[in-house]
Amino acid sequence: MEQSLDLNEIRAQITETDQQLLKLFAKRRSLTLNVAKSKAHQVRPVRDQQREQELLIRLIKQGKELGLDAHYVTSVFQTIIEDSVLNQQAYLQTLTNPNLQLPMVSVAFLGNKGSYSYLASHRYFSRRAEKIIESGCQSFADIMQQVEAGHVDYGMLPIENTSSGSINEVYDLLQHTNLAIVGEITQPIEHCLLTAVNTRLDNIKTIYAHGQPFTQCSNFLDKQHDIRIEYCDSTADAMAKVYELQDETVAVIGSEEGGHLYQLHALEKSIANQDENHSRFILVARKPVDVAEQIPAKTTFILATGQKPGALVECLLVLKEKGINMCKLESRPIQGRPWEEMFYIDVEANLKSAAMQEAIGELTELTKFIKVLGCYPIEHISPTSVPAAEI
Amino acid sequence: MEQSLDLNEIRAQITETDQQLLKLFAKRRSLTLNVAKSKAHQVRPVRDQQREQELLIRLIKQGKELGLDAHYVTSVFQTIIEDSVLNQQAYLQTLTNPNLQLPMVSVAFLGNKGSYSYLASHRYFSRRAEKIIESGCQSFADIMQQVEAGHVDYGMLPIENTSSGSINEVYDLLQHTNLAIVGEITQPIEHCLLTAVNTRLDNIKTIYAHGQPFTQCSNFLDKQHDIRIEYCDSTADAMAKVYELQDETVAVIGSEEGGHLYQLHALEKSIANQDENHSRFILVARKPVDVAEQIPAKTTFILATGQKPGALVECLLVLKEKGINMCKLESRPIQGRPWEEMFYIDVEANLKSAAMQEAIGELTELTKFIKVLGCYPIEHISPTSVPAAEI
Repeated sequence: MEQSLDLNEIRAQITETDQQLLKLFAKRRSLTLNVAKSKAHQVRPVRDQQREQELLIRLIKQGKELGLDAHYVTSVFQTIIEDSVLNQQAYLQTLTNPNLQLPMVSVAFLGNKGSYSYLASHRYFSRRAEKIIESGCQSFADIMQQVEAGHVDYGMLPIENTSSGSINEVYDLLQHTNLAIVGEITQPIEHCLLTAVNTRLDNIKTIYAHGQPFTQCSNFLDKQHDIRIEYCDSTADAMAKVYELQDETVAVIGSEEGGHLYQLHALEKSIANQDENHSRFILVARKPVDVAEQIPAKTTFILATGQKPGALVECLLVLKEKGINMCKLESRPIQGRPWEEMFYIDVEANLKSAAMQEAIGELTELTKFIKVLGCYPIEHISPTSVPAAEI
Repeated sequence: MEQSLDLNEIRAQITETDQQLLKLFAKRRSLTLNVAKSKAHQVRPVRDQQREQELLIRLIKQGKELGLDAHYVTSVFQTIIEDSVLNQQAYLQTLTNPNLQLPMVSVAFLGNKGSYSYLASHRYFSRRAEKIIESGCQSFADIMQQVEAGHVDYGMLPIENTSSGSINEVYDLLQHTNLAIVGEITQPIEHCLLTAVNTRLDNIKTIYAHGQPFTQCSNFLDKQHDIRIEYCDSTADAMAKVYELQDETVAVIGSEEGGHLYQLHALEKSIANQDENHSRFILVARKPVDVAEQIPAKTTFILATGQKPGALVECLLVLKEKGINMCKLESRPIQGRPWEEMFYIDVEANLKSAAMQEAIGELTELTKFIKVLGCYPIEHISPTSVPAAEI
């Protein structure tokens, strides 16, 4: 009895410590926002990796004196630094694009509450808007139309997945739209087998899911016998269906986080072929955004070269000569013109930069068709590395 | 001028905040260690995911009032909780195995300072020992011999990689050793192209590396023209070679963290075929360890069934009937006996548990040969999930 009282006392102290931690996180965030404000009129980049590294090395040394190991200090401060960088970038973006500072945004995404697109939308806007008006759609084309027609501000579209590759349907839709890409976000995809009632894996006879999760969990599914597969338009639809059935013989493939919304529980976790699985989403809007010069930017454009041999290589040489790094190249057939290809190119460059303006000029002369789909902040913040010797 | 003074003032305040954060992290860690001490005489598991989830939900609500977004609060507290769980587990392990509480350990690993095995060894022991005596080896067999002969306490061996699969040589060595597996750790593998001097990718004519990184970066390497490939015994050897040459035409594939030790810099980052790449390492020692009951445990054993059809299925049915989850099954040929296979099995169970003892008993009757390689704490702490509705 006395021991359990002790435990309550310790837990009260942990709760107290957590409150203090939260307050310090909030204080640190407002301090780094002040740093961003002082940098607003300079063209210095938000990140100074040299400074970050020195900071981490100092913290590791001080942490050791307090009995904290280097790996813990590194990993917790990498998260704190990432938050600080993303927050400074979001602030600088609202200075460059005053119309982005909205308390409320409306977003169209695939499926319903709980889909991976829903989770990505909420994560993207969590530091950018106070309230999100959700608009679940049944297809990628619907999402585009919702934005084009002005029914919503933004559309969230998955564009590629580390395990199953590019999502061709979205690439094809981008060929025929006037919408601009204004942002990106990478969402971890953690497939679980979820059920509405307590059951066992041997009892499952039917699995509901979207086509992508099926492909990504093929090894797990191959090992199950006598299972019927029901394709759904989205993960959320599949979840709603399984919730409705309340049947111990049915399950759905989806995220645990999303499944909570349908009172589903994980029967099996991590059932994907690859342990680590991420989807990159793009955010589209009717108007393009400018990216503040202090922020790393990505520009996406499409081009068609015609059937001249070596034409693509010439285009890539232009980028190389301007010192512009290409981070993605994807080709898609042009509808109605067999053997002709449209190339989708992502580069790490700000559209406003002199190098990029010159490159676009030269590419226009080399190609039959070229269109910039958008320029937007790079969302991925690579963690500051620390020399192994310091650890 | 006035602005830059302001910036210095803000930075001083950030430094002050970071000091306070460090102290609170250390305080929280010692409080959670007290929780572990109060649990030491109970058989309750260290983790209480229900409690963790409630904690996170409360912190998210409080964070929102302070202007912190839910994703930041979740991710920073997931790191804090992970540290707390690993620390409590390490404490309970030293109670169960008093001989583990050493201020100094010696470890044999592949290669030299900076190899992935070196990084894994340091990370594993960072919360378990005050000082590590390093013993770099030229082969996996050397590592085994160093431990068998008593020259070092432990051997760190990579056993599988998310991208290139199982490391057969290590599996084969495990067949013929009396060493026990006493731990595991998963190390992120982040391949970069590193150079000793400032240079450009077009200048590189020779790339040094270990065979594994070559396989894992094949897409990147295929795109480079006229490059000569030099195989080395380990990543560290390759780094030392490139440092020695100080030549703008040579590069090495390795981690940025390890490369710092050889004053190498990353020319290209993330050059692996798969973005996310991890290796699982096992730790071997002369004596097995016991795993405290409060900690999730893994047991690894090998068995040979002879050529009776269906014999393996019968073995797997034994595990299933005892409710023991198998997390890995790997088969390897038995040397000198063509068509006979040795099976390597990892299960999520404590060797001391009744279910596992019964299973081993029944398996002994079903098989020609069975040997337990070890029972050890599961190192992977799955992050506490939060219902999407709370975010």
